[in-house]
This record gives sequence, C-alpha cells and structure tokens, in this order.
Amino acid sequence: MSITKSLRGMAHISSLLFAVTYIHVANGSASDPEAPSVRAPSQIIAEAQTKDWRQVKPDNLLLLELPGGQVLIELAEQFAPGHVANVRRLAEQGFYDGLAMYRVIDGFVAQGGDQSEQRATGEAKRTIPAEFTTRTISSDDFTVLPGPDGYAPETGFSGGFPAARDPKSGQVWMPHCYGAVAMARGAGADSGGTDFYIVIGPAQRYLDRNTTVFGRVLNGMSAVQQLARGTSAGGVLEKPEQNRIARARIASQLPPAAQPDVQVMRTDSASFAELIRARQNRPESWFLHRPNHVDVCAVGVPVRVNED
Amino acid sequence: MSITKSLRGMAHISSLLFAVTYIHVANGSASDPEAPSVRAPSQIIAEAQTKDWRQVKPDNLLLLELPGGQVLIELAEQFAPGHVANVRRLAEQGFYDGLAMYRVIDGFVAQGGDQSEQRATGEAKRTIPAEFTTRTISSDDFTVLPGPDGYAPETGFSGGFPAARDPKSGQVWMPHCYGAVAMARGAGADSGGTDFYIVIGPAQRYLDRNTTVFGRVLNGMSAVQQLARGTSAGGVLEKPEQNRIARARIASQLPPAAQPDVQVMRTDSASFAELIRARQNRPESWFLHRPNHVDVCAVGVPVRVNED
Repeated sequence: MSITKSLRGMAHISSLLFAVTYIHVANGSASDPEAPSVRAPSQIIAEAQTKDWRQVKPDNLLLLELPGGQVLIELAEQFAPGHVANVRRLAEQGFYDGLAMYRVIDGFVAQGGDQSEQRATGEAKRTIPAEFTTRTISSDDFTVLPGPDGYAPETGFSGGFPAARDPKSGQVWMPHCYGAVAMARGAGADSGGTDFYIVIGPAQRYLDRNTTVFGRVLNGMSAVQQLARGTSAGGVLEKPEQNRIARARIASQLPPAAQPDVQVMRTDSASFAELIRARQNRPESWFLHRPNHVDVCAVGVPVRVNED
Repeated sequence: MSITKSLRGMAHISSLLFAVTYIHVANGSASDPEAPSVRAPSQIIAEAQTKDWRQVKPDNLLLLELPGGQVLIELAEQFAPGHVANVRRLAEQGFYDGLAMYRVIDGFVAQGGDQSEQRATGEAKRTIPAEFTTRTISSDDFTVLPGPDGYAPETGFSGGFPAARDPKSGQVWMPHCYGAVAMARGAGADSGGTDFYIVIGPAQRYLDRNTTVFGRVLNGMSAVQQLARGTSAGGVLEKPEQNRIARARIASQLPPAAQPDVQVMRTDSASFAELIRARQNRPESWFLHRPNHVDVCAVGVPVRVNED
C-alpha cells in the first residue's frame, strides 16, 4: 500500500465546501470568539488516525466503467443483503457489460441496466423482494444526528453510510442523498432486481422507503455527471450507447494488486463526531453565520482512495 | 409567441421525479385509498392556467453561453437589488465575455468570473455591499411551507423563488438550492461583486446568510454540469479556458425576437399551493410511502420555455 493518499469523491467535496471563494481559507482562531471549539472539516479529515478509517471490503466494492471514467460504489450489505447479493452476482457474471446508463435526467438520477429486459440473469434474479427498510441494524450501530428532519423521525449514520430510522418500529433505511445508489422498480414493491439509479442532483428524499437504496458512490461522481442527458419526456436516451457501461465488476474478482484501496471514515469514531459538530457550525473565520445544524445528506462521510 | 411549449430545467426535472423506473407512470385513483386528493405534479403543471404563470422580465434574465450550451438565470431583484444591478451592468458591458468558469467542484459549485481580478469593471463595481438577507419583502409576499427546516426558522417561496425567513427579525433570504446563483466573496462580507457561483450538487444550505444569493438557473443546468471539474485541491482548473464563458448578456439587450420567452409559475397561485401538497404526498400509485413533507429545495418552482 502506498503512503500517497488522496481524498476523493464525497470526502474530497466535503473537505472543500468551505472554500467558496478565490483561495481564501482561514481557520478559526482566538481572534474569532464566536467560532466553535472544533477543528475545520479539512483538518479533522486530514488528521484522523488510522483507527478512524475502515477499509472497504473488495466484496462490497462495485467498479463501474463509464465513458467518463471509473465509478466506485460501496454496496451496503447490512441495509439490503438481498440486493447486494443479486447485484454482486450480476456484476461477477458480466451482466452489465455493454449495457448503458439509458435514462439520465439532470438534477435527478442516472439509471442503468437492461432496458430491453432480454439479457439472461444467470445465477442472479431479474426481480427480488424489496428491502426498503431493515430491522437488523442494532441501535448501537447508529450515530444519531441532532436536529429536525422532515422526512424521517431520526437521521444519522450507520456503518459509514447516511441512515434514517424510526425508533418506534426499529426500521432503518438509507436516504436518497447525492450519490446514493438504489434499485429501480415497476408498480409493485418487489418488481426490481437489475436496473439501478444514482442520485445526481439534490437529495431525493421523497423516494426514501419507496425503493431499496443499496449503496453509495465513493468516488467518480464526475464521471456520472458527464453522462449524456435524455431528451425525451421520461429522460430515456435516444442513443443510450453514448452512456455505455464498458464493464461492471466486483473488486474481489480482480487480482489483489488491481483492487482499489479505498477507506471510509468510521461513523462511530471520535473524528466523525467532531466532523458533525464542525459541519453544524463551521469554525473557519470565513463563516459569518453558523446555523447550528446540518442535515444527514450534507455531512459527507469522508472517503480516501490510496493510489500507488 | 408560439403555442409550442416545453417544460424545461427545474420544472422539467420536477415533473419527472416520480417516474423512477422504466416507463411506469400511474395516477392515483379511487382504487388507491391512501392517495391524497391532489393531482400529480406533472398534471398540475401541465394544466396550470395562464394566470398562474409569470413572464420573466427580460431585464432580469441573464444568458450565459457555456461550451455545453446556454444557461438562463433569473436575477432576483427583490432579494438582492445591489447585486442584480451590478451583475446586470457587468453583463451589459461584456465583462464576462471570454472569461471562464474557473473553479468547478463536483457535487458543490461551479464558480466563474475574473480570476485575475484585472479586467476593468467600467460602470460597475468590483466589490459591493453584502445583501445576505433583506427586510424589504413583506410577509404577504411569502408562501409558507409547513414542516421543520433545520437551517431556518421558516421556509417558503416569494416571487417565484425558494426563500427562507426569520419571522422575529423580518429577514428573508434565498437558500442554496440546486441551481442557486450567488456571489463569491473573500474574508469580509462586502468583498464580492463580480465572481459568482452556481450550486451544482446537493443543497449547500450552510452557506445561507454567508453569501448573497441573487438568482437561480431556470434552464440549462445540464450545460453547467458538462463543465470540466478542477483537479487541484481548491477545485481551480489548470486550464480554465476549457470552461470559457463565450458571452453573458441581459435578455433586454437583444432584439425582442431573440429574447427567450420564459415563464415561472407564480408561487402565490392555487396551482403552486396544490403542487406543494402533491410533493408532500405524491398521489401517483407508484408511491408506497408518503412522507407528508417536502423541503424548500425539493419543491421545484416550475419553469416553462416557449419555443418558436
């Protein structure tokens, strides 16, 4: 493993949110009495200790090769085991190779898979039971985010993923944040299984609990944004081959040396707890107003991709 | 004016949010007892009467020519009159022509203007006083959105723009939703005046009241998304000329026949009130869970561009 580290994707974005202007970057200091006593997000991420990061399992890492580059998706086994197993099997078999992201609507989603519904699913299934929510995540595995959320009784993080839950029912689910990966479906709850979509604009929280979110993009959202948009009413492309999926694989299929080395910040770590506080009230002196709030999709779970 | 109408940009997006999957589109019906008694968003928009739409004034319509196409921005005079006047003057003088969107961070913002700070501002100013909030919008001009919002005491809509307010202080401001256009600034509140940014990812609400939001993109976000992303730490491009602004003009400078014919749904109309209810609880039978909530950035103020 190389010691050359680069922060990428969501974390990269997150670490830069504060530098809105030119090159001005300032940290909170004693001369800024209103600044909260936390470090700046970029500093928290840069200084997080090894124990605060979790290595993404190669079995849970889906590599999607799009015209604009590679997209790294972490599959969220604990939230949607059936969906993860099915998509893993499909990718391993090469099901998605040569298919396309055939429906892309700016500010909404990019959807891909088998538009024709003709390709053989082999050991996988075309439709599988919905996993809109799960009851198998214990309350110990949930870092609660304070503050109101109109879409869910409670929000927070679990296992490195944004999450929401209903304490009464014990149900937990992943919200439709930027970069969320979910299964498309037809009229019935259990009608999806192969075609997935990625949220490419504002959070689409009203879709929460209407589809199964089973992962999130860790790196490569800019390749998703480069996809051609559909021009028809439903966003379906006239020439879907523009958005060809050259290949989709699970990292564990690759030789070890070729497997991406990706880490996600542990959402039950002290670093992450401080990051939440820093996002609620940014300490950098550039900020003149601090809302004392952050929503679940705006925290950004940091990711780092180690490159050789 | 042509009777050929096309829904574009945010409205186009909004009207399609429900069709997540294939081509399945179903309306709520008597056989779906839980569906609320509102029409589907797409139907509300399609059937809105002429009086429910407001023509965008050519004086408030900024046309930005990017490599990926034209971007239409409505300038929000009532929220930030000083910023609108300055940007209008800059565009009229050709200040932005040949400059670039020189800082682009995926999932965050695309920033453009005079990176060198060398170009003459003519009758306009390089820096102008901040207009983070305004007290000149009367409470009659504010359609309140029910439900909690962690970033503001109250949210809603005013004059066709998403808005937030503090009823105690009477301050009103525009939130950083997808497509919001705001002025970049340095360390001080009054340090911006020429360089602007567009929100290209999830809402960046923590920036509310930290910068002056002075408009929003009505059409052409896909051209903004096609911009090259910066690869340096701060998102600044090594070759900003990739993202060249060929031209920025105010529509009123063009011959009448060349001025885009754009309308925005009146946010104080009956159609818009119904649209809010429909977004809180989508009536289409596809939806199996209805949150009874919508956040200010997820409503989507409908836009239509009439094309000859």
